[in-house]
Amino acid sequence: MSAGAPDAQRVFSWPQRVYYQHTDAGGMVYHANFLNFMECARSEWFQSLGLDLGRLAREDHVVFVVHSAQIAYHKPALLNDALAVTARAVRISPARLVLEQKVVRGDEALVSAELTLACVDARSHGLIALPVAIRKKMEELK
Amino acid sequence: MSAGAPDAQRVFSWPQRVYYQHTDAGGMVYHANFLNFMECARSEWFQSLGLDLGRLAREDHVVFVVHSAQIAYHKPALLNDALAVTARAVRISPARLVLEQKVVRGDEALVSAELTLACVDARSHGLIALPVAIRKKMEELK
Amino acid sequence: MSAGAPDAQRVFSWPQRVYYQHTDAGGMVYHANFLNFMECARSEWFQSLGLDLGRLAREDHVVFVVHSAQIAYHKPALLNDALAVTARAVRISPARLVLEQKVVRGDEALVSAELTLACVDARSHGLIALPVAIRKKMEELK
Amino acid sequence: MSAGAPDAQRVFSWPQRVYYQHTDAGGMVYHANFLNFMECARSEWFQSLGLDLGRLAREDHVVFVVHSAQIAYHKPALLNDALAVTARAVRISPARLVLEQKVVRGDEALVSAELTLACVDARSHGLIALPVAIRKKMEELK
Repeated sequence: MSAGAPDAQRVFSWPQRVYYQHTDAGGMVYHANFLNFMECARSEWFQSLGLDLGRLAREDHVVFVVHSAQIAYHKPALLNDALAVTARAVRISPARLVLEQKVVRGDEALVSAELTLACVDARSHGLIALPVAIRKKMEELK
Repeated sequence: MSAGAPDAQRVFSWPQRVYYQHTDAGGMVYHANFLNFMECARSEWFQSLGLDLGRLAREDHVVFVVHSAQIAYHKPALLNDALAVTARAVRISPARLVLEQKVVRGDEALVSAELTLACVDARSHGLIALPVAIRKKMEELK
Repeated sequence: MSAGAPDAQRVFSWPQRVYYQHTDAGGMVYHANFLNFMECARSEWFQSLGLDLGRLAREDHVVFVVHSAQIAYHKPALLNDALAVTARAVRISPARLVLEQKVVRGDEALVSAELTLACVDARSHGLIALPVAIRKKMEELK
Repeated sequence: MSAGAPDAQRVFSWPQRVYYQHTDAGGMVYHANFLNFMECARSEWFQSLGLDLGRLAREDHVVFVVHSAQIAYHKPALLNDALAVTARAVRISPARLVLEQKVVRGDEALVSAELTLACVDARSHGLIALPVAIRKKMEELK
């Protein structure tokens, strides 16, 4: 990233409202659903960078998978909350993409996570290099 | 609804992209997830009409439930498809709200459904009348 | 089915406990999750009849899809409820399998549904005939 | 745990088959669904120890929440795989329960995780002490 670039450029954010389907009998968003929220945000991010995950899967048999995840739940999210989900590239290697993702409600961070993504061949399930286009875009944003 | 009101006024539409979480090993959106898409759209519709489902649940202990559903799956939705989900009131009674909901991709209808909603008391699970505000708004839109 | 065969032979049943992941902020099982419960039960049924859905998908590119569904929700299911999910063949044609499925808690029917299943080619998404083995087994059970 | 007790006593295991609902367009179990598998296993574990999560939530307004999670995905799980999900207590404090959970297929560990659970009051969402009965049982098993 060029010096002086605003931080906002590097952090992608996507809105997410909480519906019944996300909550559980405790009245809060069920913990695993935050991983779904994070997938929505980073898919829209990839989309905004010109990466079509559908075409990649169907034409190139390349699918993104989560390789590891560390998640901290700070505060509950409730039904109808208007949340935002952020994504930011932390480290990029030929085979791995490490993202920091947060779920926030206004100024409050509700959940924060570090996710390591990799690409696999959908037929063999073997690890393959990340698409060059996405690596280049991510490097610029880092 | 006043005579001559454009149809668009009566049909609410909400965008929905397809992410990995919605698809299954057949490469298509898993059938039950279309019900989730429909809940997103009608929740946003209720929200646009001034109904706060979160407050309703937490302060008034009133929750919306699906009482019955008829769903026809016409064509598959695929990873990264940009869909729209519509909702339209078909019938309203003190205790029931019948909606027609569709999932479309451009001009193609992929899924169509008729859903009957009711309200229940979250503590007793007994049926109660729909909130007057939502009934009135729905009657105007019908 | 031979005359006099007990009804139990024709109705498959599979246990299902309710976990947090199935419930919503209303304290009840979220309506779409009953379709998931039904998929569990009929997959185990197919498995018990000798049909390996995994092999079918990966080796033959044949996937089962739900073509239409009619669902009636009679009573709520609650966290930790010990449910049973039944499946029974109603009609079988070369291209369609109509099942009746119920979710019960003891003697109470909580949800009942009629689901029409079809098979599609996972590559073209075109409709194909049901596997002969499953049709034959289902005919015997009907 | 008394000296010499077999390890098997301390590790709870619960079967889990992979259905369409768990997989994604990559043909593998979607990463967030492993957290669901883990919830099934530990709920059955709690149940086997005499803890009724449903009664606890409805009568005592006590709900278990995941406070943090570290998950490593080693190998993919595929449609129709017969998996087992294990749970083992690692650390117990008045307010926290740290579990090690694994998803295995035969001898292969597919996913391993460390989850920290806490209890909250469902009305205030404030942290509260773990139920004494469960703490005692867990201490014995550790």
